[in-house]
Amino acid sequence: MFVQKEITLRARSRGFHLVTTEVRSQLPELTSVRRGILHVFIKHSSASLTLNENADPTVRADFETYFTALVPESSTRYEHDTEGDDDMPAHLKASLLGSSVSIPVTDGRLNLGTWQGIYFCEHRDSGGPRSLVLTLIGE
Amino acid sequence: MFVQKEITLRARSRGFHLVTTEVRSQLPELTSVRRGILHVFIKHSSASLTLNENADPTVRADFETYFTALVPESSTRYEHDTEGDDDMPAHLKASLLGSSVSIPVTDGRLNLGTWQGIYFCEHRDSGGPRSLVLTLIGE
Amino acid sequence: MFVQKEITLRARSRGFHLVTTEVRSQLPELTSVRRGILHVFIKHSSASLTLNENADPTVRADFETYFTALVPESSTRYEHDTEGDDDMPAHLKASLLGSSVSIPVTDGRLNLGTWQGIYFCEHRDSGGPRSLVLTLIGE
Repeated sequence: MFVQKEITLRARSRGFHLVTTEVRSQLPELTSVRRGILHVFIKHSSASLTLNENADPTVRADFETYFTALVPESSTRYEHDTEGDDDMPAHLKASLLGSSVSIPVTDGRLNLGTWQGIYFCEHRDSGGPRSLVLTLIGE
Repeated sequence: MFVQKEITLRARSRGFHLVTTEVRSQLPELTSVRRGILHVFIKHSSASLTLNENADPTVRADFETYFTALVPESSTRYEHDTEGDDDMPAHLKASLLGSSVSIPVTDGRLNLGTWQGIYFCEHRDSGGPRSLVLTLIGE
Repeated sequence: MFVQKEITLRARSRGFHLVTTEVRSQLPELTSVRRGILHVFIKHSSASLTLNENADPTVRADFETYFTALVPESSTRYEHDTEGDDDMPAHLKASLLGSSVSIPVTDGRLNLGTWQGIYFCEHRDSGGPRSLVLTLIGE
């Protein structure tokens, strides 16, 4: 069984946003999968996806603080700066975190740990709406 | 063919641990897969999985040294600190390294390079036992 | 439908190289897949794969500059140094970036964003030819 959908995330502020519920709500087919994998893919090179703590919003705030320090903005550090100081750092963060997450599906539900959620990571100051491709493979 | 199993890794010390043999031993079904993928997933947000050098234990020691320097512990740097100084760094390391690895399966075996092994990365001082979900998709 | 191929990338200089066209050209079977996933895997622990900006070569140059600063070479910092100063940094970069990328396949083509391409990331000074395993799962 292969299900595939392209969905749009509305524009969000720069930072880390929990989107587990939004992704799951697009996939009523999940309930009929006994064993499989959900692949969630972002079609951009300046935003990313990761799994992390789903409860305390300060974790997402700390992610933004940490990654902004790890990949500093600078008008002189990078050759590629045509779109502004947040441009090249956004590309680097996208590759440090990754373009997709893959989650086991078991007995009709995402088999995440109790504290795991899907983070949409917006690395641009004004990224606009973002496209995801959801691919569900299972039986 | 879909095979899925949830297994428990015993508690290990903080650091990087080679678990290739342990994962493989849980999957006798591997030998009957001609072409496919093994997805190994960790159900936690303060531990992670990666593939790296499988021979010299000093590589794993250097990983622990490097990542502890890259994501420093601090009682003042992070807002999220309810579980101790190793808490927020563990979440950040988990996303830098990732929650899953996917490995091709070819002619009944994991098609890893000669020097590749599966690392279980424990980022907490006392993480306790950890749950993995193994999903084998193949023909 | 499962298609799997092992291909060799010719030796390239240390740095980040766009290989989307080279990977795609090895998979004429792509055109017959309506929905699925392409998994691209590198069988090495000192080189990696990621997805990022496919147009401006200065992005790839900035990646090399950034990652060389993030994971410094040093004759004293690492215990594992038998193969030279670029050895342990190459292992660390490989895990920061990852050993595989998974890309949705839709209506016979890789469903990448307009600006996304596959980067082969050579972290050794002289890495030599590198092996990839391509696994296409779809219907």
